[in-house]
Order: sequence, then structure tokens, then C-alpha cells
Amino acid sequence: MKDSLHEKPLFGTVAILGVGLIGGSIGLALKRKGLAHKVIGCARREKTIQSALTVGAIDEGTLDSCHAVATADLVVIGTPVGDIVATLEKVLPCLQEGSLVTDVGSTKGDIVAAAESLLLKEGRELHFVGGHPLAGSEKSGPASARADLFQEATWAITPSSSSSDAAVSRLIQMVESIGAVPLVLDPDTHDAIVAYTSHLPHLVSSALVNAIHAGSGHQSVTPLLAASGFRDTTRLAESSWNVWRDICMTNRRNILAALRSMKHQLENLEAFLQAENEADLIAWLKQAAEKRPELARRGAAR
Amino acid sequence: MKDSLHEKPLFGTVAILGVGLIGGSIGLALKRKGLAHKVIGCARREKTIQSALTVGAIDEGTLDSCHAVATADLVVIGTPVGDIVATLEKVLPCLQEGSLVTDVGSTKGDIVAAAESLLLKEGRELHFVGGHPLAGSEKSGPASARADLFQEATWAITPSSSSSDAAVSRLIQMVESIGAVPLVLDPDTHDAIVAYTSHLPHLVSSALVNAIHAGSGHQSVTPLLAASGFRDTTRLAESSWNVWRDICMTNRRNILAALRSMKHQLENLEAFLQAENEADLIAWLKQAAEKRPELARRGAAR
Repeated sequence: MKDSLHEKPLFGTVAILGVGLIGGSIGLALKRKGLAHKVIGCARREKTIQSALTVGAIDEGTLDSCHAVATADLVVIGTPVGDIVATLEKVLPCLQEGSLVTDVGSTKGDIVAAAESLLLKEGRELHFVGGHPLAGSEKSGPASARADLFQEATWAITPSSSSSDAAVSRLIQMVESIGAVPLVLDPDTHDAIVAYTSHLPHLVSSALVNAIHAGSGHQSVTPLLAASGFRDTTRLAESSWNVWRDICMTNRRNILAALRSMKHQLENLEAFLQAENEADLIAWLKQAAEKRPELARRGAAR
Repeated sequence: MKDSLHEKPLFGTVAILGVGLIGGSIGLALKRKGLAHKVIGCARREKTIQSALTVGAIDEGTLDSCHAVATADLVVIGTPVGDIVATLEKVLPCLQEGSLVTDVGSTKGDIVAAAESLLLKEGRELHFVGGHPLAGSEKSGPASARADLFQEATWAITPSSSSSDAAVSRLIQMVESIGAVPLVLDPDTHDAIVAYTSHLPHLVSSALVNAIHAGSGHQSVTPLLAASGFRDTTRLAESSWNVWRDICMTNRRNILAALRSMKHQLENLEAFLQAENEADLIAWLKQAAEKRPELARRGAAR
């Protein structure tokens, strides 16, 4: 871990558009490790900028995204998934020739395709390489930002066919410098897998709360009978609904496939219970207990 | 909190049949607070007894459950749910007149009914009052036992129509003395609610692992794309399959109802996504985010 200043920063000016938990943590990590000469933050509300300045996530703040990117050689779009393409479109004319733009959205297919077509229309030498740090929390806002949020976390990097190798390498370098582990894969593969590993757990968590509320929420003793198992499985249900609306809408088909797979598992279980089929119930429980450590193996850090 | 020895212990000899995580933690808590003159542990394997002795959960150990209960005024059956009734049946002739027997099983209807009929047949003055501490972890065994495991945790106490008030009071006193919060309710209400608040989250956690494994488990990068959301929601899937087989079999009808409710929620979500119905999707996500803190309110301690 390099906690001291680098002799030569990786970037001159970095603009972070949207300094929430993720954008703020990127700013903190870049500044802590001396990776940028200057970090400019942009947000919609003055209050967010003040908070990002207070925690030390940015050097300067502005409400004007065009102003923020004008001198930047790296632009990180940290807005919610549904706003990423519109944000890129807005700042496109203000970007410096040769600059690298990335995002931190949880879905990549739609965003990468839209960004590619915008850049093509713009014509100038600009680079977009999609990204998705697999780190976060049910908390939001710059006040929750942490410089070590990405330590050992996977950071998916999803180049398109038109991404230059140099731009991809530069993003990999940035990601590694703030402690994350880059994973380069194509946007569609990314979306198909995170539908299972990330989106399904989130939505199942919400479904669980709604099912418990519908089934026993009217009883005053219900909260007294909810223990750590309930808390762990439902923590994600408190995440921002707007973030999850966007994710659902931009990864709809993959999420629908994951939901069908989940429903199928519940139907298997239902059939075992209805038939009092202990052997198949045990095999089903055992498979989950055995496969879980394999799936959790590398996600252990965050 | 009373951490010093009581002037007069609540119990003379306490026998704990099954000194795993829960039984071992009860032993530790009783001994730490000086609530019993002597704690005798019983297990099937010598190794478990040695481990319980090593962590200080019991004063004496035996492989003979009849011997363990012979001098006890409180008997705690800490075996897996499926063995509780057989354990009670086995030690019944060896119990002291007037002694109080309780259990720590996660389901109560079947156990309380069977215990009642066994005691009726035995005829002597013996007391059984069912119990269920809402504490635990995916870990098991006496080595994971903690004296503070029950601190502020709900401890359901489920008397039957034939339980004496004195026996119920004595169990309440024990539960409060080791830091838990007693909640007296009838066995059927208990089972109907925990099917939602505890059993459903556990089984959904297993279903989630099996769905992810079936849907994307064959891809080598899948574990790299599983982050904290995955880990929290699937932690419970590593629980012992034998514990969950027993719970499923003894609370089958309530669990089936909870599974139907869960499936219904997933079907709602599926319909919203299929129709690209953002308004209903948002309402559904919002409801989960709003209801979750209400349901988690009192379960906060464990």
C-alpha cells in the first residue's frame, strides 16, 4: 500500500461528476495517494459539494459540469446509472482533446453502447472506457466516503470494440493505484453475471421484506422475532430506490432471467416440502452450503 | 448487568443436553453470572464435551444423558430440533420430581405438543416449558460459544395450556438473568411468525446460492463479481443442513405459506420489469426500504 505522495501524479486534473459514496471515495483515494494534481467535484446541490470538500474528497467543487471537465484529463462519471449517458452528452463538447472518460455504473451494456455512439458523433479524439467498482454500501453521500472503499475490491473494466488499448491501460493503472483489482470483460458478460451476483441479491432482499411485511408485518411481536438472519438478508433492501430502478431498467432482460432462476429454486424447495421429500431437501441445502464458499471466495474483501 | 457471583444461585444443578453453540453459550452465561451451583453438559461425542470443558461452558461432562439429568433442577435440551422429543423421552424416567425442562428449538408447535403428551404419560410432577432464543450464527459447536450471545436477544417462551405459572416464571427468570428479553407467546403463533422472520430468510439465502450457481456458477469470473451484497444475503446458506432439514419438517405448513408469499413478491417484480412499469417498481422498492427498519427495529441487538 502506498499511502505517501507519488513523485509524479498519474493524472493532472481529475473531474468527478457526482460525488456520492462512490465518487467521493474515488476522490478521497486519489488524493490520499497523490494520484492527481487536482480533483474537481461536481454535484447538483451546493450542500453535496460542501460535504465532499469537508471530508477532503475534492480540492474544488462546482455545480457546472462543463466547467468541471474543461481542464480534466480524467473524467469519472459517478452519477446514478440512469443519469450517466445524459451527463456524458452534456459535458461532451467541453471535454479536452485526448481526455479519458469512465463511469462507475452497475450496468454496462446500455451505457457503453450509448457512450460509443455519442463519441462517434463528436468525432474528436476522446476516450470512453466503462467501469464498475464492486464496492459500496446501503449508505450514500460523500459523508460516507472512505479512501479504502476499493481496497481489494474487484473493479470491472468493460472496453468496447472501439476503446483504445492505451485508454484501457490508463484506467487499469488508476484502478490498481487506488487498491482495487481490475477485471477486464465485455459489457454484456458483465451484465449477465452481475444480474446474478449483485442485482438478484438486492432484489431478493427487497422481496423478502415485502413478503415478511405482507405475511406477518401486522403482528406487533414480529420485529421481536426478527434476529440477525433477518437483518443480514434484508440490509440491502434499504438501498436507494432510484439506484435500483435504474439498474432494473438497464439490465432488465438479465434480471428477468435471474428472477426466473430464483423462482425455480423456490419451487423446487416447495415441492420437496409438499412431498416431505427429505432426501432432495437435504441435497438442495447441502449444495447451497457447499457452493456458497466457492462463490464468496474472491469477493471476500468487500 | 450482573457479572459477579449471585449470593444465591437461581438453580442447583443445571443439565445441558447438547452443548453446541447455543447450549454451550447458555452454560457459559449461567456460569459467568453464578446462576447455577453446577452445570453438567451432555453430548454424543467425548470431543464435544472436552471442548465445552475447555471453554468453561460446563463444570462436568458426560455421554450419559440420564446421568446428566438425575440431580438437575433445570434441564436444557440443546440438541437439534429433530432430536429434542427423543431426548426428552429418553431422560424422562431419570428426571427429578419437580424439575423444569426446557428446550431451545427453533420450532415450537410439534415439540411442545409431544412434550406435553410425554409428561402426561409419565404422570409425576415434572414441568416442560418450550423456549427459543433468537440468537445464533452460521457457526456451530461449543468452541463458538459466547457468554454474551443472548444479550438483549429475544427469547421466545411458549407455554402450553398445562404449563404451571411457577414453571413459566422460573424460565423467565433464567432468561432475564442471562441478559435476554423473554417473549411469552403460544407455540403456534411463534411458528407462524418465525416462518417469515427466520426460516424464510434462511431458505431464501440457500435458494439464492443455488440460483446463482445454476445461472452463472460455471463462469470462472463469477466469484470476482460477487461483493458484499452477495456475502450478506447468502451467509446463512452455510448453516448446517441437518438443523434446517429439521426446521423445515417441523414447520412445514407455515414455511410453505411463507414461500408462497415470497414467490408472489418475485412474480410482482417480474411483472413490473416485463411491462417496464417504473411506477409500480418504485413503489415496491420504496415499500421494502420503508418497512425494513420497522421490522429490524427490535431485533437490533443480535
